[in-house]
Amino acid sequence: MSNNSIKFQQAIELALKDKKYGANPRELYDPISYIMSLGGKRMRPVLVMMACDFFGGDQSKALQPALAIELFHNFTLVHDDIMDKAPLRRNHPTIHSKWDEPTAILSADAMMVIAYQELCKADISILPALLEIFSDCAVKVCEGQQMDMNFEKQEDVSILHYLKMIELKTAVLLAGSLKIGAIVAGASKEDQQAIYNFGKHIGIAFQLQDDILDVFATDEKFGKQKGGDIISNKKTYLLLKAVELAKGNRFMNEELQMWIHAPEFDAQQKVEAVTNIYNFLNVKQLATNEMQKQYEKALTFLASIHVAENKKQELISFADGLMVRQI
Amino acid sequence: MSNNSIKFQQAIELALKDKKYGANPRELYDPISYIMSLGGKRMRPVLVMMACDFFGGDQSKALQPALAIELFHNFTLVHDDIMDKAPLRRNHPTIHSKWDEPTAILSADAMMVIAYQELCKADISILPALLEIFSDCAVKVCEGQQMDMNFEKQEDVSILHYLKMIELKTAVLLAGSLKIGAIVAGASKEDQQAIYNFGKHIGIAFQLQDDILDVFATDEKFGKQKGGDIISNKKTYLLLKAVELAKGNRFMNEELQMWIHAPEFDAQQKVEAVTNIYNFLNVKQLATNEMQKQYEKALTFLASIHVAENKKQELISFADGLMVRQI
Repeated sequence: MSNNSIKFQQAIELALKDKKYGANPRELYDPISYIMSLGGKRMRPVLVMMACDFFGGDQSKALQPALAIELFHNFTLVHDDIMDKAPLRRNHPTIHSKWDEPTAILSADAMMVIAYQELCKADISILPALLEIFSDCAVKVCEGQQMDMNFEKQEDVSILHYLKMIELKTAVLLAGSLKIGAIVAGASKEDQQAIYNFGKHIGIAFQLQDDILDVFATDEKFGKQKGGDIISNKKTYLLLKAVELAKGNRFMNEELQMWIHAPEFDAQQKVEAVTNIYNFLNVKQLATNEMQKQYEKALTFLASIHVAENKKQELISFADGLMVRQI
Repeated sequence: MSNNSIKFQQAIELALKDKKYGANPRELYDPISYIMSLGGKRMRPVLVMMACDFFGGDQSKALQPALAIELFHNFTLVHDDIMDKAPLRRNHPTIHSKWDEPTAILSADAMMVIAYQELCKADISILPALLEIFSDCAVKVCEGQQMDMNFEKQEDVSILHYLKMIELKTAVLLAGSLKIGAIVAGASKEDQQAIYNFGKHIGIAFQLQDDILDVFATDEKFGKQKGGDIISNKKTYLLLKAVELAKGNRFMNEELQMWIHAPEFDAQQKVEAVTNIYNFLNVKQLATNEMQKQYEKALTFLASIHVAENKKQELISFADGLMVRQI
């Protein structure tokens, strides 16, 4: 991470540390303080502040919109964790595990409202623009999450639909964070759109990298259980591409389908077998190619922005930092 | 209902009938269209439009904020129904029963965002004021719902806490609806606050009436199962007051506590026995007194507003209409 992004991350942590979300009833507000204190990379609020800085804006004015984005992001995590029945988030119990499901639903609802309240502290001259992009992203994140849930039940998911899903579920909020920073800084509409598109394609590339790392990361460089996506038949780029390509090879197709539909299996054996199929079908390379394509598209949008080239290096470094985990 | 309120209700139904919330994925938007089409009295959006009319505003400008309020209200219903595990809403399956819980959580989340989008269509000159009261109400509704859930686990709930809970959970949104209409019409800050307080006390009176009707309504005039609150030990004004008063009468106290803690019982027998205790302790009258007090407080706030007296009659009639169901 660059010096600036570290500085912004610290400013965000500090602001979050001091933040009071409300007092009573405690059962509503304690879970909010809890989840907001669990840390994480604070990637989205850092992007708000970086974009504001990038366009020469007053960073102090970016802090509240940045907190709004982080609150919204955590709201989605709390509700996603209920939907996924996830016991842990950042190595700590999820709200619905530590308290209960109604508390998790409701406290996250309050977080969403508080996010809007935080956003509404902005100057009236930029408020409508901020609200428009914020709500637009929020709706898209819901759409993306629904698509992701739909995929679990769908037999045939195309790569195109998959890319759309990760765009909505993951990339759009990164894009929106950058656009919000640009709006705060008073960037032109063209530059706002360009930095949004930069963020969108970086976000898609970032998610593709996550898919690849889940299977091919060396253990030390990846925090999660290796092959978790394979074990749960998660429809990632790798699996969808493999299913598509295996159709041309009866033996591969039968083996892949056997593993996908196996009611019982040894987890390690499944991970190994499906990884072998991935290797045979070269899907890691294809995913990497798509990731690279998205990354380069992102850079093209960045290049189009009317800001000095040396300032762009900071955003490129941050993006590279996201992609740094070697595959 | 007055002619005006019927006219407003029809305008709202018409607007909702035409409204598209979004297209894809259908699994996200179908539940929204479903719940928004189930009808109901549309009390809150009607109040937005009535208040706008009351202060001589342009009614067409009140329609979108009115829809925002109705969307928000339905968002709370969908999440409340999950928390309460309610199978039915307005005699139709709840979203989580008809689809599933993740769909209910997520589609309601989207409704909340769409509510903000609807509100944000307002003129920039009143947007900050609208957003402020809207978010303030939204947070308070969450607080009220949490208090209500807390009460289920609490042994001792005071009447004061109970009144605070129904204020937050129910009354504040009626109050906020009126204030939003007042803001749209350009009413003074004093008048905005007065109509808010009018709505708040009407709302509390309305909820107290609901508590009373649950036990004492003649069957034809009340849609729900009679005595449902008694069967489920719901901590209403009646029960809390009865518990308080029974402490002075050992026999009453033992019988009431026996029914409250009975692990198994005949529902009709419990309803009859507890109703007898209520009658003996005169709690219906005490609840009616509190309701009357709240209603009169509401009228005092209405009286303070700088609007011609004959126009006030419309709001009084509407309020009376809410209270019309004979006890």
